[in-house]
Amino acid sequence: MTQVTVWNEYRHERDSDVVAEVYPDGIHAVIADALESGGFDTRTATLDEPEHGLTEEVLDDTDVLTWWGHAAHDEVRDAIVDRVHERVLDGMGLLVLHSGHYSKIFTRLMGTSCSLKWRESAETERLWVVEPGHPIADGLDEYIEIDEAEMYGERFDVPAPDTLVFNSWFEGGEVFRSGCCYRRGNGRIFYFRPGHETYPVYHNDTVQQVLRNAVRWAAPGDGPTPEFGNSEPIEEIDLSDDRTVH
Amino acid sequence: MTQVTVWNEYRHERDSDVVAEVYPDGIHAVIADALESGGFDTRTATLDEPEHGLTEEVLDDTDVLTWWGHAAHDEVRDAIVDRVHERVLDGMGLLVLHSGHYSKIFTRLMGTSCSLKWRESAETERLWVVEPGHPIADGLDEYIEIDEAEMYGERFDVPAPDTLVFNSWFEGGEVFRSGCCYRRGNGRIFYFRPGHETYPVYHNDTVQQVLRNAVRWAAPGDGPTPEFGNSEPIEEIDLSDDRTVH
Amino acid sequence: MTQVTVWNEYRHERDSDVVAEVYPDGIHAVIADALESGGFDTRTATLDEPEHGLTEEVLDDTDVLTWWGHAAHDEVRDAIVDRVHERVLDGMGLLVLHSGHYSKIFTRLMGTSCSLKWRESAETERLWVVEPGHPIADGLDEYIEIDEAEMYGERFDVPAPDTLVFNSWFEGGEVFRSGCCYRRGNGRIFYFRPGHETYPVYHNDTVQQVLRNAVRWAAPGDGPTPEFGNSEPIEEIDLSDDRTVH
Amino acid sequence: MTQVTVWNEYRHERDSDVVAEVYPDGIHAVIADALESGGFDTRTATLDEPEHGLTEEVLDDTDVLTWWGHAAHDEVRDAIVDRVHERVLDGMGLLVLHSGHYSKIFTRLMGTSCSLKWRESAETERLWVVEPGHPIADGLDEYIEIDEAEMYGERFDVPAPDTLVFNSWFEGGEVFRSGCCYRRGNGRIFYFRPGHETYPVYHNDTVQQVLRNAVRWAAPGDGPTPEFGNSEPIEEIDLSDDRTVH
Repeated sequence: MTQVTVWNEYRHERDSDVVAEVYPDGIHAVIADALESGGFDTRTATLDEPEHGLTEEVLDDTDVLTWWGHAAHDEVRDAIVDRVHERVLDGMGLLVLHSGHYSKIFTRLMGTSCSLKWRESAETERLWVVEPGHPIADGLDEYIEIDEAEMYGERFDVPAPDTLVFNSWFEGGEVFRSGCCYRRGNGRIFYFRPGHETYPVYHNDTVQQVLRNAVRWAAPGDGPTPEFGNSEPIEEIDLSDDRTVH
Repeated sequence: MTQVTVWNEYRHERDSDVVAEVYPDGIHAVIADALESGGFDTRTATLDEPEHGLTEEVLDDTDVLTWWGHAAHDEVRDAIVDRVHERVLDGMGLLVLHSGHYSKIFTRLMGTSCSLKWRESAETERLWVVEPGHPIADGLDEYIEIDEAEMYGERFDVPAPDTLVFNSWFEGGEVFRSGCCYRRGNGRIFYFRPGHETYPVYHNDTVQQVLRNAVRWAAPGDGPTPEFGNSEPIEEIDLSDDRTVH
Repeated sequence: MTQVTVWNEYRHERDSDVVAEVYPDGIHAVIADALESGGFDTRTATLDEPEHGLTEEVLDDTDVLTWWGHAAHDEVRDAIVDRVHERVLDGMGLLVLHSGHYSKIFTRLMGTSCSLKWRESAETERLWVVEPGHPIADGLDEYIEIDEAEMYGERFDVPAPDTLVFNSWFEGGEVFRSGCCYRRGNGRIFYFRPGHETYPVYHNDTVQQVLRNAVRWAAPGDGPTPEFGNSEPIEEIDLSDDRTVH
Repeated sequence: MTQVTVWNEYRHERDSDVVAEVYPDGIHAVIADALESGGFDTRTATLDEPEHGLTEEVLDDTDVLTWWGHAAHDEVRDAIVDRVHERVLDGMGLLVLHSGHYSKIFTRLMGTSCSLKWRESAETERLWVVEPGHPIADGLDEYIEIDEAEMYGERFDVPAPDTLVFNSWFEGGEVFRSGCCYRRGNGRIFYFRPGHETYPVYHNDTVQQVLRNAVRWAAPGDGPTPEFGNSEPIEEIDLSDDRTVH
């Protein structure tokens, strides 16, 4: 059974009544429920726990990690980012959600600024499926409509995704590559744009369906673990010449 | 249960004693056994059957089609190629094997010549896994070694694969992109280089493992069926201007 | 100096007064002027000329071909499509414009249906630059706005572009990958969405700038011409074993 | 005129007689000469200069930076890496050479370990052109042969390149993706494998030709500078509902 750890910054929900009304037990609780219902073995972890809840033991039992952060990216300790980074390269799946685009782990994995345009106007977002044959689109209609969304607009400064699954339209006039698949090391990463602390986006059934699909896609396989470093030749190398070094 | 149809030209095995010794019941029989053992519901179809064995009914029951052809590509009727092409765009998986690179269905789907260099010298091929996190690499070591292979060498005139899984080394000095994933329409296509009528490549356990992995990867999902053509607006379009046409 | 041939179906302009008002000398005349002003050596060719104006001699003198067609795709003779296809694989650049998505040459090169949603409502299109470092975006602002556009909407059934340069927003609620780069054979292909017979899109200065940038990008280089077919080994192959065939 | 800064660690050449014999004035001197002869305005910079020779002023005058390092990656100060990183995202081209795969700037931009297999046995490398239509392949034959090369073997732990231009064969039995193009931010990055302190690889005419081609490809264009952050809507947003936040 795929084991998922749902990570949340979990600050807005405790600091703001508006947010607490939408996510009384935290964004992580809603996401964890959505994944639990998909048959995954799910736990949560948050910023203010020791080691941000991401101990070696927890990561040993994590196939896929989901990441939501916003206001306290800088408080995530570098040592924990290193640890998560290493795990992703070793094959752990990673779902980066909404404002997680600016998290240390995502910018580290992307190598770019991950900047974008944004606006909070509770406007309509329509996520069009542009790769209907991708497993993350399973069970969806041609588009997902979200009535009240924060806008994220291009230019989204990320590497071109290995596969682009969703492409968003916004009422205010922008577009956004809103579902982006990446392979890094042995790991699979999915960036999914929707979600915001003041809009009930993670209560949306279709958004939850995407999260379940993405966990299934990102779960590690059983591919080879590459060996790096000095390596003996497999074939014989011709030494019968006057080469400088052998 | 995933339903697989294993298609084979099935001429060499009946015309040549050398080939018949390697594949007495045809290449398709060996491939079908390998897939059957992976838990797939497997049938076979060959060129000289009516409609090449690829009737509408057969394709209705096919999730993934595997294709081996070599000497008689031209005898595959265009109407059947059209039918298979349409099925792939509708989501059917397709595994194109070895000399199938020159089949009508593969060149149709790629849009290029699919030409390459080749040589029959029973030389060593070593397929290196370059994307160890891809499901087609599940259960493999860092490379697959084939003692006696026909050489295929670059330039392989195909579109750059969406994902490159294997990269081959040949004893005679060439390289080849030997495991190439493509998405076309709603369908997934995997080109896998190894296999030849006079070498027992499809009896190789690891090659069989790749075929099983590839069927699993290529099996259709449940994504949306796109609607094409004239389309009503979802949002209101402003008509309060002096535009020429509305 | 880069030599460009601007191909146009050139029927709407002769059949319809509305279209003739926008493009009195044909769409090709406006595009050719735009490219001529970019310092390219430009000629035109149209459907109703002998060999559609695309003789061997013309193509010998063509570095980049631009293609606009709409109502008469089927009247383009297959032999000419074969000829153009071969030239693209040999390195000739190809710009496919707007309704050219359904042309024989584009669907041949893509291998898919190239279908899409469409609507004629003279609505606003905004093409966002999603890859600002690409040469086709040279000299542009963050987006191009077109007041009166025919809508093309996703799902656009093409292979994922090698590079996506533009991503369009439409007033009616759709998005579209509207600037798509492909490499096929030795040739470079750019699909550019804007343009329509009843809207004056090709008179737009920024659209013309994109066309000039795209010609520059698609012009052939001086890379190697691959040799295909039976090939002697470069390295010695070990024959000291009991291999079946050498 | 394109301005190039050739950066070199420049330690081996001063510490080792063997290396000094191959590169008496440093690897950078040979590369700079090769680029100068291509018509570029070329300067050099090395690790032990103040700010590693990469002051703000130098970078202001740099269109393309080439990077060779090996034994002292850790001595490159983070502040200078930050500075170079920012410049690349702003559009400066970057050529990363050979052992530069482990440099701070390359691993930062890739987001992965950039690990690989290696061996020093003065063996044959053959770089096959797999994308002959790419400008970096201009003027080349189908392959480049290097008599004495250090081996680098897959798995090369980098993101799949946006375009793969070269694919290497090694005498000892390995393959390697040896010419990899990436877009990051507004910048273009080319990783080119050949080159080593004890083999005279940068004296090779064809290798020099690739370096010149790559500088030309990586030189910045004139695309838009994205604006990030809070952004006013372009279209009117409907406020006539009961949405929570506007």
